[in-house]
Amino acid sequence: MKPDDVEPSTTEGSSPSRAAARFREAAISAFAESGYGGSSTRAIANRIGLSPTAMYPHYKSKEALLFDVSMDGHLQALEAIRSADDPDAPAAARLQSTVSAFAQWQAENHTLARVLQYEIHSLSEEHYHAVTDIRRRTTAIIRDIVLTGCDSGEFTVADVDDVVLAIMSWCVDVCRWFPSATHSEPDRIASLYSGLVLKLVGIAED
Amino acid sequence: MKPDDVEPSTTEGSSPSRAAARFREAAISAFAESGYGGSSTRAIANRIGLSPTAMYPHYKSKEALLFDVSMDGHLQALEAIRSADDPDAPAAARLQSTVSAFAQWQAENHTLARVLQYEIHSLSEEHYHAVTDIRRRTTAIIRDIVLTGCDSGEFTVADVDDVVLAIMSWCVDVCRWFPSATHSEPDRIASLYSGLVLKLVGIAED
Repeated sequence: MKPDDVEPSTTEGSSPSRAAARFREAAISAFAESGYGGSSTRAIANRIGLSPTAMYPHYKSKEALLFDVSMDGHLQALEAIRSADDPDAPAAARLQSTVSAFAQWQAENHTLARVLQYEIHSLSEEHYHAVTDIRRRTTAIIRDIVLTGCDSGEFTVADVDDVVLAIMSWCVDVCRWFPSATHSEPDRIASLYSGLVLKLVGIAED
Repeated sequence: MKPDDVEPSTTEGSSPSRAAARFREAAISAFAESGYGGSSTRAIANRIGLSPTAMYPHYKSKEALLFDVSMDGHLQALEAIRSADDPDAPAAARLQSTVSAFAQWQAENHTLARVLQYEIHSLSEEHYHAVTDIRRRTTAIIRDIVLTGCDSGEFTVADVDDVVLAIMSWCVDVCRWFPSATHSEPDRIASLYSGLVLKLVGIAED
């Protein structure tokens, strides 16, 4: 790593990983505001007072930067779901806690989450496949819970894949509309969907 | 209107409204591919073999073009729902036919629909409000049906606004992921959601 790509003024700012993190944050803001196609590497670097050449030791291209943002974001979302899941709990409780965690993550990280969704097709084919692999692992946790609930007789579901698609769609779409005129609390969105999801699997709460 | 902004070769192509429609189509493709921020008026005009100056008799700015695309698209979606609704039918049938029509519209028009969703914040404040007014009218149809079903005792719903949000989210989000590895038939998406929506209002089909 060259020393001229990082902030000289602080100790914290002088580590290469800290500089890369600042480029990722700048990229998220730029992509969210102007889109990937509308954000030049110069515009991204300028957001943190650097020149585009300062980016190259960390990211060889704008696409490499998007890929790092995408991998990091998708892994965060996967971890949010995974850490909320207690495989020993009843299926209904598992479904509620994972859906709650995923919806909450989308609300709390809506700017990053929008970039993950809206710019996925700007990735190279290889990088697209790396990201969709993480998405499949995320979906697989919810699918496993729905299947477990069906097997145990807790859930009544006509088509498991339809229900899983509908659950994932609810959670991911939170980043598109959150916050809204009526919703600004991630907790509220988490409880909204962890309640409605029971209806989808045939458990009436009302 | 200047004559140099339209195709000289066909009678159909020589009307100003036909030229404006071609600019809208080119804009939808450009915005879907590169984002609003990544699409210059030159790039949009070049898609139909014209120069940017040919756009100005029809659209004074790129934002004006996005606004026309947005109004037209949102009005199409509203009309799809409205024309599917028979106010004399039972609430469950009304809900199924409107959700079916809206989900199908999102699948069939997924490229346009993505532009409507992803670029809404690129509109001017005045234009944003004009578009959200149509969105409110679209949501109001679904909300009215849910309220009617609750009043008649057909539906069991804890919170009408939560259920309406969840229904609209399902339908709108179709444009983000459709088509997928497993789904390429708009009809199938329409029947998927018109089935699941009954569970949300407390009507079990399984």
